[in-house]
Amino acid sequence: MSKDKKKEEKLEKIRHSLSHIMAGAIQKLYPGVKFGIGPAIENGFYYDLDLPSDISSDDIPKIEKEMRKIIKEGVEFKQKNVSEKEAKEIFKDQPYKMELIEELEDNKISVYESGGFVDLCKGPHVKSSKEINPKAFMLTSIAGAYWRGDEKNKMLTRVYGVAFESEEELSEFLKLQEEAKKRDHRKLGEELDLFCFSDLVGPGLPLYTPKGTFLKDELQKKVEEICRRYGFKKVFTPHLAKIKLYELSGHAKKFGDELFHVSSGKGHEFVLRPVQCPHQTQIYASKMRSYRDLPIRYMESDRQYRAEKPGEVGGLSRVYAITVEDGHSFCEVSQVKDEVKGMVNIIKDFYSSLGLWGSHGVSLSVRDYDHPENYIGEEKDWDLCEQMLQEVSDEMNLDAEKREGEAALYGPKLDFMFKDALGKEIQIPTVQVDFATPKRFDLFYIDSNGQKKPPVMVHRAVLGSYERFLALIIEHFAGAFPLWLAPEQMWVIPVSENHAEYAKKVHEELLENNFRSILRDDNETVSKKIREGELQKIPYLLVVGDREIKSNSVSPRYKGEDLGEMKLTDFIKKAKIEVEEEK
Amino acid sequence: MSKDKKKEEKLEKIRHSLSHIMAGAIQKLYPGVKFGIGPAIENGFYYDLDLPSDISSDDIPKIEKEMRKIIKEGVEFKQKNVSEKEAKEIFKDQPYKMELIEELEDNKISVYESGGFVDLCKGPHVKSSKEINPKAFMLTSIAGAYWRGDEKNKMLTRVYGVAFESEEELSEFLKLQEEAKKRDHRKLGEELDLFCFSDLVGPGLPLYTPKGTFLKDELQKKVEEICRRYGFKKVFTPHLAKIKLYELSGHAKKFGDELFHVSSGKGHEFVLRPVQCPHQTQIYASKMRSYRDLPIRYMESDRQYRAEKPGEVGGLSRVYAITVEDGHSFCEVSQVKDEVKGMVNIIKDFYSSLGLWGSHGVSLSVRDYDHPENYIGEEKDWDLCEQMLQEVSDEMNLDAEKREGEAALYGPKLDFMFKDALGKEIQIPTVQVDFATPKRFDLFYIDSNGQKKPPVMVHRAVLGSYERFLALIIEHFAGAFPLWLAPEQMWVIPVSENHAEYAKKVHEELLENNFRSILRDDNETVSKKIREGELQKIPYLLVVGDREIKSNSVSPRYKGEDLGEMKLTDFIKKAKIEVEEEK
Repeated sequence: MSKDKKKEEKLEKIRHSLSHIMAGAIQKLYPGVKFGIGPAIENGFYYDLDLPSDISSDDIPKIEKEMRKIIKEGVEFKQKNVSEKEAKEIFKDQPYKMELIEELEDNKISVYESGGFVDLCKGPHVKSSKEINPKAFMLTSIAGAYWRGDEKNKMLTRVYGVAFESEEELSEFLKLQEEAKKRDHRKLGEELDLFCFSDLVGPGLPLYTPKGTFLKDELQKKVEEICRRYGFKKVFTPHLAKIKLYELSGHAKKFGDELFHVSSGKGHEFVLRPVQCPHQTQIYASKMRSYRDLPIRYMESDRQYRAEKPGEVGGLSRVYAITVEDGHSFCEVSQVKDEVKGMVNIIKDFYSSLGLWGSHGVSLSVRDYDHPENYIGEEKDWDLCEQMLQEVSDEMNLDAEKREGEAALYGPKLDFMFKDALGKEIQIPTVQVDFATPKRFDLFYIDSNGQKKPPVMVHRAVLGSYERFLALIIEHFAGAFPLWLAPEQMWVIPVSENHAEYAKKVHEELLENNFRSILRDDNETVSKKIREGELQKIPYLLVVGDREIKSNSVSPRYKGEDLGEMKLTDFIKKAKIEVEEEK
Repeated sequence: MSKDKKKEEKLEKIRHSLSHIMAGAIQKLYPGVKFGIGPAIENGFYYDLDLPSDISSDDIPKIEKEMRKIIKEGVEFKQKNVSEKEAKEIFKDQPYKMELIEELEDNKISVYESGGFVDLCKGPHVKSSKEINPKAFMLTSIAGAYWRGDEKNKMLTRVYGVAFESEEELSEFLKLQEEAKKRDHRKLGEELDLFCFSDLVGPGLPLYTPKGTFLKDELQKKVEEICRRYGFKKVFTPHLAKIKLYELSGHAKKFGDELFHVSSGKGHEFVLRPVQCPHQTQIYASKMRSYRDLPIRYMESDRQYRAEKPGEVGGLSRVYAITVEDGHSFCEVSQVKDEVKGMVNIIKDFYSSLGLWGSHGVSLSVRDYDHPENYIGEEKDWDLCEQMLQEVSDEMNLDAEKREGEAALYGPKLDFMFKDALGKEIQIPTVQVDFATPKRFDLFYIDSNGQKKPPVMVHRAVLGSYERFLALIIEHFAGAFPLWLAPEQMWVIPVSENHAEYAKKVHEELLENNFRSILRDDNETVSKKIREGELQKIPYLLVVGDREIKSNSVSPRYKGEDLGEMKLTDFIKKAKIEVEEEK
């Protein structure tokens, strides 16, 4: 077993045991409490409780204190198997446990006892509470949760805790949590005025304000500029289609009730597209194609719509309206590998420009060989596709890790994983080989022998959806975007009215040099403007007064740091180099 | 009566009389024919006939000849009123006329007689066929038409004709028709591969191919670049909203069953937006605004959707998916006139760059004073808005013509009319003042006295919908776009394989100078490439051979004309100036 796996199992035992210890403490403090369930979860544990009286976060220290007492006492976790009858005797005063026992079909029921608290539980647990570091856990919050997640049931009280092996790990985790809160794209999105939501428009439907639109457009320009170098051409297609299009592509079945249906009083029946590829096949199909025309490469950054569960949309991470930068190459079999390599290079160029290349991993996502019914297309095509991707991985030293069952509906893919601000793995770019879709749509070209042949379709996503990507980079940069991407790059702030004229001159010179400069000559105090500029994460704040006028200079503050006085021309040169290098 | 009106009435008499003369001729040529109806229409006339045997366009000369004979005989058109009984006697062998008589409630039935042909008809007609120029009409086509337009009835034969006062007018009309056919954006759209349709996607949902997308994007870049100079900032909003949004704005009522409804198996209920303005109000509403922030100007080029009647969509002129370049300014009352002026200047800048400014007219579209119920908002606001637009028209010498009843739902507007390729008036840009919408959405700002006040919303469209605008300019330029706009600006064509290397060098130098050059070094013959390039309306075709290699030159063909040999550097200079001047 790997070291990581071992550590994981140990942590799960600690967390699960802590949920029992918490239950025991609460039983002591709140006699008459009825217990729901108490599992280990990511980073910690919880227990669902039906308490004789309400508790609040004020009660947390008291419970923690009792827990630490139990831990220090060194209670043992003792497992035994009992019959249904014995179990019902043990839990006769615990209606939720009784309900669970009723549903067990086995007559060998596992229970755990620790320091007087008995639970219906399969384990595993630590042997003794001495294995738990009493300083490496804490209770974090109290929330409501319906018994068994069903809103028709009683609302119970859920007490959450986090736990690690060492105090250092706990404090590291808490620091990251704190940081995550500060970086949360929903919070920053509002503070920096990047996007908003409206009750009249609806949840899951973000409205991009001018600054958010600027970010989106700059990213789009960058990705399109790179793709154009690799022969991609933009197309522009509508958001509707007849459902027939998706029945043919297989997406109608795949998305099922995630499809939005469109109708009118005049008898129209359409669906909102859940993906963009089928529309692009129809442009390919609009003309006779020859082998001389291939590869044909299309790209499009536009909306697709998916009916996510109303309760599950939030921020930019999960939305109904998804803006996807999607691209496809239609090519001959002999061109597939070069097409895939071109796409990998596009991904490399784009992520390098954001300083993210290198911190990634690659996986070769292949089909689940035990469940061919989950995919469309022929086995021999799948074999060939998977082999070609493996060859690309080898030839480009991608070191892709094979992952079974992770392929797309229509073919295997190379997935690129990056880490988000909290070190969590996140998959965005992908290159997918697809022999199936062109056949489904009867796409063809005339080969060099005058024969009709189906092209291969290679799908690629570079930044995926703008919504998820923006959420990622807002959090990655904590809102302090690199200079080339910052919607407002610099504020020019005159010390007083006497310096307004010079400030205007500086501002205009910056505009002429294509910088996004803002002149802050309004009535606020200088210190308030500086504070505001720092909150707005403006890269450069240029306060100008007598000294700067005298020497035709500026004294830039760069992300809070005073860079000292420099000639305006030098500052412009420096900022230009910065933009150039970042790009 | 105006001269135009007089001419129109005279033409209608001539056309209506020609339909009778045609019917008389057909009665003679095809005895036993039963007559439906035969009215004058735009540019001509038709008659619906139930013929004893089929006829085709081959029969047209015979009918025309008989008609000319009748005209030259100088038959009189004699009207008389008859009773129902008399009418039934006259038309007893004409079942369609009998059906019409049955429905007449009057006992005074008007009939016309001319050269032995009697028709049930109210007139008016020419006095004598001598008033008709026998060389100024022609029969144009034969089609099928259900009796009374109802597909449950019998299909009759409809013979169409066109007619004018003089032979010159007829030939002018025929020339324009011919030209219109050549310029038809649907035909050119396919030939130049600009957009396509797919049965699987559906009618009314155009798919823009790479070249069409390029045209759209270039126009968008141009209009956004101009608008940015006037302080507009791009926003980006979804295509869905709750219907509540449009109930508040008034558009739900206005668009009625033109709204597309969106639903899902998960209980979502939305509509596709029929207009963009309400989404933009929600961005305004997302933050507290102060008078210092105003004017706030948003723009967006994106789709809106309208459920046109399925039978009525066609080409780009009428579609379900409309890409609209829409923009709004939120401002104080005192800023309205300057905002309107800025928008008029944007329109002027944009249309000047296409060479269309100057050939336009302006109208001041005000409400229908007799029907205030057709509008939202308060009367005093309407008065003020109309007055302000009148002042702008005066101060900017727009010479706007007042048109009652042409205002928008929420306010009066300045509309700019241009002429299409056939001289037909077409309204595209518009500036509209709107006091009503901000109040409906409770939009406000804090004025300089700390009071909440609703802003005024000024709407503006520059190129309107990209679909209609593209149809217009495809037809205007007959597909031969100005150099700055042409998706492919030049083809480099080597005379033989020996010249391929030089052709490549020329091509690369053109690319480096940011021209959209295509290297045609494939196996087609040179003459075929030239023919193809001309059909594709490529501005410059650069054929290069020995002579060009020797002197490092090119011999450009510009829209079919040979410009003679010139140094490559001179050609680049010339083409750059052309782009610069056009822009």
